[in-house]
Amino acid sequence: MKQTLKISSAHNEKVKFLQELQQKSAVRRETGLAVVEGLREMGHCLRAGYEFHSVFFCPPLIGEGAMRSIDGYGCKCYEVSREVYEKVAYRGSTEGVIAIVDQKRIMLADLSLSEHPLIVVLESVEKPGNLGAVLRSADAAGADAVLVCDPLTDLYNPNLIRSSIGAIFRVPCVACASGEAIDFLKGKGIKILTAQLQDSELYYDTDMRCGTAIVMGTESTGLTNVWREAADAHIRIPMNGELDSLNVSVSAAILLFEAVRQRN
Amino acid sequence: MKQTLKISSAHNEKVKFLQELQQKSAVRRETGLAVVEGLREMGHCLRAGYEFHSVFFCPPLIGEGAMRSIDGYGCKCYEVSREVYEKVAYRGSTEGVIAIVDQKRIMLADLSLSEHPLIVVLESVEKPGNLGAVLRSADAAGADAVLVCDPLTDLYNPNLIRSSIGAIFRVPCVACASGEAIDFLKGKGIKILTAQLQDSELYYDTDMRCGTAIVMGTESTGLTNVWREAADAHIRIPMNGELDSLNVSVSAAILLFEAVRQRN
Repeated sequence: MKQTLKISSAHNEKVKFLQELQQKSAVRRETGLAVVEGLREMGHCLRAGYEFHSVFFCPPLIGEGAMRSIDGYGCKCYEVSREVYEKVAYRGSTEGVIAIVDQKRIMLADLSLSEHPLIVVLESVEKPGNLGAVLRSADAAGADAVLVCDPLTDLYNPNLIRSSIGAIFRVPCVACASGEAIDFLKGKGIKILTAQLQDSELYYDTDMRCGTAIVMGTESTGLTNVWREAADAHIRIPMNGELDSLNVSVSAAILLFEAVRQRN
Repeated sequence: MKQTLKISSAHNEKVKFLQELQQKSAVRRETGLAVVEGLREMGHCLRAGYEFHSVFFCPPLIGEGAMRSIDGYGCKCYEVSREVYEKVAYRGSTEGVIAIVDQKRIMLADLSLSEHPLIVVLESVEKPGNLGAVLRSADAAGADAVLVCDPLTDLYNPNLIRSSIGAIFRVPCVACASGEAIDFLKGKGIKILTAQLQDSELYYDTDMRCGTAIVMGTESTGLTNVWREAADAHIRIPMNGELDSLNVSVSAAILLFEAVRQRN
């Protein structure tokens, strides 16, 4: 293996910086960097054109094949002791490799859309884990993009990356204001379907074959009026049980795959 | 409020027993008891005919209305200090009320099914949180039952109860061996659809209007042969992305709501 620096102290400044990046959204915002854990997620990163700044690995935890992949990354590599690794690892899992990557700030104007785009819009999503799960479903459904409006979380939160199992690096994800998103969708002639219980039609009675944006609010308060008023149609998933609602990522998946069904 | 016992020590034996029930599946199995946290979940319990053994509440955390509901439960009530409550509460939330309830052991023979039953079968589900999320979707879709075959978790795991937001008390959930479940489904003429990628048809090309059981394996290893061989059809959700698979609770929701769509 090519030259690497060995780190055995958790007080090392590289290690402390890595921890700050994991824990503090302000540090991620200021530096434009993010942390990725695990070989699978790092693979998604590389294939999506992200570049690694540095890689931290722990030899007792990763296999030899993985060691060879790391050698090919062409960035600074730090070999850390098991004690240090367990301090910096966000996950309980034992993959033994963590990378620091440049964030990509994708703007609405950067999106390259298919002929009949399929887009998910989340307004003020609260939990990073939910956004991650929506990205995973959006990837599976082949959605063009996920727009996160007026977000309460940053897109490179470690819990988001984890629950997306790397989809955050694959599905174009734009953080923007609701007004901008509405202008963008209307400008492209993309139909806005808002998920809401009141005054709505059943989702499977709604045509999703043309360009479609599926818009969802928070589980607790739903969508704001700005979206309800911008909508071309209000759609609902029929609720046969007594419980209030489905998880937002489950609702997103049901609606996305209805679009997939109609389009095939 | 009627007479209650006050507890201010975490060493109190009632408190220690409550903690054991939360933490140890063996204690839940031996006693046939389970722990429910939060007023909403407790409401689902009561409406489903569960009986409370005892209730622990913490006055600084619950409102007066909630205090009055507790008074109506007709079981032993223990007023605990905030310090004790925070020790026993599984959730970070501050609802301030926890109950001990009798488990219900539902057998296949106990199930009362609709004319065209809709059933979810999970084989060897690993994570209690996933099973809870499946129960939530099953409730929303109006499924008749969830069968958990050869389970690796007990049905009253606190994480399961939490992620089901109480659906475990509403949707009949049976733990049984795969062989028993197959005999039961075949005996009732219920079509067995196994979710698998190989040799399968698209799920929306499959008729789910008659009695249908949707069978899913673990995310890592899929279904065992006993289910593949018992299947009337193999179905798959088309994967347009690069990632391996959808979360099991998301897949369950997509398949369940396709049955709902076809049946309406």
